[in-house]
Amino acid sequence: MKLPDASASTDASRATARRQQILHAAAQCFREHGFHGASIAQISKTAGMSPGHIYHYFDNKEAIIAAIVAQDLESLLTLTAELRAACNVRAALIERAAEGVADQLDPAGAALKLEIVAEAARNPRVAQIVREADATCRRELAITIGEIRRAAGHQDTPAAIEHMVEVLASLFEGLLVRTIRNPGLDRARVAQRIQIAIDDLLDQPD
Amino acid sequence: MKLPDASASTDASRATARRQQILHAAAQCFREHGFHGASIAQISKTAGMSPGHIYHYFDNKEAIIAAIVAQDLESLLTLTAELRAACNVRAALIERAAEGVADQLDPAGAALKLEIVAEAARNPRVAQIVREADATCRRELAITIGEIRRAAGHQDTPAAIEHMVEVLASLFEGLLVRTIRNPGLDRARVAQRIQIAIDDLLDQPD
Repeated sequence: MKLPDASASTDASRATARRQQILHAAAQCFREHGFHGASIAQISKTAGMSPGHIYHYFDNKEAIIAAIVAQDLESLLTLTAELRAACNVRAALIERAAEGVADQLDPAGAALKLEIVAEAARNPRVAQIVREADATCRRELAITIGEIRRAAGHQDTPAAIEHMVEVLASLFEGLLVRTIRNPGLDRARVAQRIQIAIDDLLDQPD
Repeated sequence: MKLPDASASTDASRATARRQQILHAAAQCFREHGFHGASIAQISKTAGMSPGHIYHYFDNKEAIIAAIVAQDLESLLTLTAELRAACNVRAALIERAAEGVADQLDPAGAALKLEIVAEAARNPRVAQIVREADATCRRELAITIGEIRRAAGHQDTPAAIEHMVEVLASLFEGLLVRTIRNPGLDRARVAQRIQIAIDDLLDQPD
């Protein structure tokens, strides 16, 4: 194997850093002004780059949304892979749920995710991005929950697993709304109650 | 008691109808263009009224949001009053949850609620409206869940009830996100699984 030459690797890592810088600036603009209110001019100003630079990396705002959604999906895929590698998948899922709750309750992250889903409700291109990522999420969660259920002797139909995945997703995604509507909620205690709810969900009848 | 005279009552009902007409048009504009994208000019065109007419009823877009949020709150207060009047409050809550799920999964309603909460994340005036309504919701749900738990012999602290209310709220509010991210979900089956999850939630340890 030939090692990549040093300058090419520096170029690649510089490009990655630039992309991240744009995504970070765009996230801030979408949160503060909404998807429509945030212009490429504003994003470029926030990122400290020229608009031409932004367009070098992203064709339009939808492409930026696609990259943000892809990063969230990547985290979920890493998490489900880690869960399935655990000795006790069920215990791992419940334990790691506490992190998931904390993550969903972060107000800045929640504001951005809610803005993207609100935009998906009226913008078919954003809807497609969000729905494709969600389908992948659901598939991975179905595999994970399916393993847990089979290990406990359940004989679920694939549809039954899908419905349990929806309840699990709703429980987590509702936290995005909760942290905006009730910013004073007790994060640690709510996380514990959600862990109990997930434990119960995994024991629902076939 | 003197009956209100007929013309005053006609005026009042005409005013109510006009307000409803504006709220309906505004809801459509907020859903389609977002809170910022929707102008009073657009709302007045959709409602088939002059902008002056709109301003006669509402000072600004925030006042329209306040009226929409107040209507949703009113429905929740009616529901909790009906639940507490039932012979078996627990059974009534679980039964009526199916309607609540169907309501949350309505894509047009979900799009509007998500737009309002996304706006609340960046607009302090909208945040205040949303948070005050949420505090009232939580208080009513805490009374309802508290009754159910006491009837079953639980001795919860008020804080424990609040955390259960958060889980219940998250479960329902997550459906707003689910119906946008996965419009093909099986509404009836997911509702059944949510009913089981609520039943389990009501049995969580003190």
